[in-house]
Amino acid sequence: MTEIKDQSIQQYLDQLASKAPTPGGGSAAALLGAQSTALTSMVCNLTIGKPKYAEVEADMQTLLSKAESLRTILTAMIQADVDVFNKLMAAYGQAKETEQEKLARSQQIQTVLREATIIPLACAKACAEAMELSKEAADKGSLMVISDAGVAVMSAYAGLKSAALNVYINAASLKDRSFAEVKLAELEAILNGSDIKAEEIYLLVKNKL
Amino acid sequence: MTEIKDQSIQQYLDQLASKAPTPGGGSAAALLGAQSTALTSMVCNLTIGKPKYAEVEADMQTLLSKAESLRTILTAMIQADVDVFNKLMAAYGQAKETEQEKLARSQQIQTVLREATIIPLACAKACAEAMELSKEAADKGSLMVISDAGVAVMSAYAGLKSAALNVYINAASLKDRSFAEVKLAELEAILNGSDIKAEEIYLLVKNKL
Repeated sequence: MTEIKDQSIQQYLDQLASKAPTPGGGSAAALLGAQSTALTSMVCNLTIGKPKYAEVEADMQTLLSKAESLRTILTAMIQADVDVFNKLMAAYGQAKETEQEKLARSQQIQTVLREATIIPLACAKACAEAMELSKEAADKGSLMVISDAGVAVMSAYAGLKSAALNVYINAASLKDRSFAEVKLAELEAILNGSDIKAEEIYLLVKNKL
Repeated sequence: MTEIKDQSIQQYLDQLASKAPTPGGGSAAALLGAQSTALTSMVCNLTIGKPKYAEVEADMQTLLSKAESLRTILTAMIQADVDVFNKLMAAYGQAKETEQEKLARSQQIQTVLREATIIPLACAKACAEAMELSKEAADKGSLMVISDAGVAVMSAYAGLKSAALNVYINAASLKDRSFAEVKLAELEAILNGSDIKAEEIYLLVKNKL
């Protein structure tokens, strides 16, 4: 099976739109984050080497390195969401005739649900980090490409809010409520103030245009 | 030259991140919108034919048709942004030795700048429309895939705000100020209240999870 990242954009969009269960919103969230980091990298790449921005050259190099590492992680998450969804469907599809089978199935569902909670939570965290990186791009990047930092922050914010929805869904089905509550608290800590932060970074960009 | 939509997601992200001037934030904005409509279509496709949702079947068919039409438009805009950027660069690169050349160059730049203002404005409008479509998906779609409507609204909202930045940039360079002011007023009308609307649709989804 071709990984989603190796499909064309047209194929990805067609499959997203189709009745196929994957890819879905979780992959879309990861792509939003990956696109954000790519745009931050673009700002860095078009700032580095410009005499006018020599003062921030070292910072831009560091930022580029961070953005590219995060992009690798977020790009892998596009596929991770599909894989865990398929695992979850496989768990739900396990035999449930005997009591033993019912127990084994239920345990497997719960095991995969933990993973299906952790994966979008990690995506949400990565998107929040992408927002931070876009802020530095907006702060220090070349004015010639500063609008790309504005697109980066909006894309990352959308990714964060999108990933959050999958955390809510999967955490709700977890029987281990203490684990679920811990993960939901982590999510709320990430979400808290993110709307204001996104708007601040966006306005920082807009005011530089 | 391969159209962006025919490149793999990995290639697109790599080129976005690179120092190549295109694709940039304008293409990213259009992709955000296209992804939104694809997710709305997914909600429709996974609601249509389900006995539980027979009552909204006709509405979902109509919504699917609208979302797919808009997806075609937004997907084409991914490339349109690249094309107009290249035209603008070509115009700036025209000869400017003689007075006649200077005049011709300046006129060509202004002609292309009008186009470079209209294109992201059309993208902003299409993204605002994609938000409306995601609202109907959130209102009437199957609860099994309702979170995808939440991702759809965030992706479209990010696309709208992103496209707006390119309208600001290009409108600012227009010498025909009355044309620029009309286009900026159209943009403000689209943007006005979009943040509240995005949050409302998102909460509509979240409260159904």
